[in-house]
Amino acid sequence: MDPRVAEHARIVVNYSCDVKRGDFVLIDTSSGALPLVTEVAAEIAKAGAHFQVLARDYGFSRAYLLNASEETLSSFPEPLLNLYKGADILIAIIAPENTKELADVPPEKFRMRVKGMAEANKAIMGKEKWCITLHPTPALAQEADKSLEAYSDFAYGAMLRDWPAMASKMQVLADKMAATKNVRLVGEETDISFSIEGRKPMVDAGKKNLPGGEVFTSPIEGTVNGRVYFDLPFLFLSNTVRGVRLKYVDGEIVEHSAEVGDKLLSELLASDAGAKRLGELGIGMNRGITEVTKNMLFDEKMGDTIHMAVGRAFEEVGGTNESGIHIDMVKSMKKGGAIYFDGEAIYENGRFAWE
Amino acid sequence: MDPRVAEHARIVVNYSCDVKRGDFVLIDTSSGALPLVTEVAAEIAKAGAHFQVLARDYGFSRAYLLNASEETLSSFPEPLLNLYKGADILIAIIAPENTKELADVPPEKFRMRVKGMAEANKAIMGKEKWCITLHPTPALAQEADKSLEAYSDFAYGAMLRDWPAMASKMQVLADKMAATKNVRLVGEETDISFSIEGRKPMVDAGKKNLPGGEVFTSPIEGTVNGRVYFDLPFLFLSNTVRGVRLKYVDGEIVEHSAEVGDKLLSELLASDAGAKRLGELGIGMNRGITEVTKNMLFDEKMGDTIHMAVGRAFEEVGGTNESGIHIDMVKSMKKGGAIYFDGEAIYENGRFAWE
Repeated sequence: MDPRVAEHARIVVNYSCDVKRGDFVLIDTSSGALPLVTEVAAEIAKAGAHFQVLARDYGFSRAYLLNASEETLSSFPEPLLNLYKGADILIAIIAPENTKELADVPPEKFRMRVKGMAEANKAIMGKEKWCITLHPTPALAQEADKSLEAYSDFAYGAMLRDWPAMASKMQVLADKMAATKNVRLVGEETDISFSIEGRKPMVDAGKKNLPGGEVFTSPIEGTVNGRVYFDLPFLFLSNTVRGVRLKYVDGEIVEHSAEVGDKLLSELLASDAGAKRLGELGIGMNRGITEVTKNMLFDEKMGDTIHMAVGRAFEEVGGTNESGIHIDMVKSMKKGGAIYFDGEAIYENGRFAWE
Repeated sequence: MDPRVAEHARIVVNYSCDVKRGDFVLIDTSSGALPLVTEVAAEIAKAGAHFQVLARDYGFSRAYLLNASEETLSSFPEPLLNLYKGADILIAIIAPENTKELADVPPEKFRMRVKGMAEANKAIMGKEKWCITLHPTPALAQEADKSLEAYSDFAYGAMLRDWPAMASKMQVLADKMAATKNVRLVGEETDISFSIEGRKPMVDAGKKNLPGGEVFTSPIEGTVNGRVYFDLPFLFLSNTVRGVRLKYVDGEIVEHSAEVGDKLLSELLASDAGAKRLGELGIGMNRGITEVTKNMLFDEKMGDTIHMAVGRAFEEVGGTNESGIHIDMVKSMKKGGAIYFDGEAIYENGRFAWE
């Protein structure tokens, strides 16, 4: 057994989720995560807590989505909703056997399911303690164009870090952000600005996301103006989208295109009223992540990147935008990118001003 | 895909559990069952019902049992208990990757867990609709000394049957049993009798067990007298027990031994006050099952066998014995075995009187 699996479990249970005696932990995952689940179960036992594994393998999820009616998919069983509400902690572990297993499910099925899952997702996101992490599988390695061994080295390099030390480093940026009114981002085909006045910055240092490694907030929705080009790709429901260009006027996207996946991008931005507004600005600070692996949990934390999400804003930072979607898009800042806080360059030439 | 997997799923969902629009189905299983779960999910979707898979793989269960305290194991989280209570139907699918994975867990850990699970098990057994079935895995084939292909042929041969026709055949025996006061079983090192007067016989024709194939009841506890020898082996928590001899006086076991697993048998019979009393008499009638495979779901239904369970009796037939255990032991009746109902031989020389 790779000793990093046990170390990963200790971080998830004891640091990220801070599991306490008597807690009831739900683990949402698939069979690819079994080695990690075994170590997590041992740590939960040592903490004197209870757990239940909810299986969510793509294989049977696909069969259900393909065969269920709209009425079925857009409703949700009350006893299961109450289970989510009643759990103290939720741990989600990404570990697919095939990242493209849902590629032939019609997109409208997901929209029905998103509706059905809305209350359950709200119950989860409202919890003080939850964590999304990942267990390396051959499918994730393949998506990243890596061998499983090289991918595991990459993933553990990003996840098994000194998170309290990372938190201190990120707090420097968060403190600057808290004192900032206006943000301007400049880079390749990019010049965009908005206000974050009064919005709370958050440090993600391995608590709700493992890996963590970003400082983020939700901009004031109506103040976003300018153009932005996201050079890095992302996966949405087994489909790749790459080279997204957005133009904002007073908070609303007025022009958009994608080099790959343009039709899907159009559909996503048309899904509801809030989908065309900005939900998040995040600044990646995990220098253990040096390359894109087409998994947003990692990509958005990459050092020398920024990301912006269209759709749902974060209530806990003061965000108000509502939407059924929250889709992160990542931009590399290494070559010529700069971030200005109230006119002062806090990042340029590949480093922060205080580095 | 083996078309028998889809046929199995149709029987489980539409016949055994009779899943209806709006039902919420819990599926309790492990990753070895994924091919069947996928087909079951499709059938549940077609029925307009909801489901959730609860994973119970031995690997992480072992890690939890080994590391959890008595206090933790003997308690149970309220939200999970309410989930079991709130579900309309439970489908349990046996599909281990290693039938001996729990072999090094100390027995007292299971006793603690049985205590913790008591209320949840009661909630499940109290439901009108539940079903235990099995998906063939290499580990189950190995336990049966068979190739996976031969084991799959065996398992589907027992499960994919014309259950309504089987039910009619078994009803003949059940009707005789309902009119019977005294039962006497004779065979190799065996002569035992008891009253079943007023106890209801049940026909198991692929509803709560798939495969089904037995007619059973709970004898009147205090009336059991005589000796019985169970020649066929059974597995208890990864351990084999074989060649059990029991002597009953007025309902209580006064002598017992096992050719293999004698110490474990002694521990089991000492687990509580009801463990030494008879909880069930079952008569196997599934002639699709012609050999022992060390899986009780199949072995107890084998044609030309009877089985008796020590421990918990069935409330729904009028049984009163209470115990934390219910352990079935099987006896072949083919060679010289006979069953007498009120003095009349209803089974001898390998056939029922009406066959």
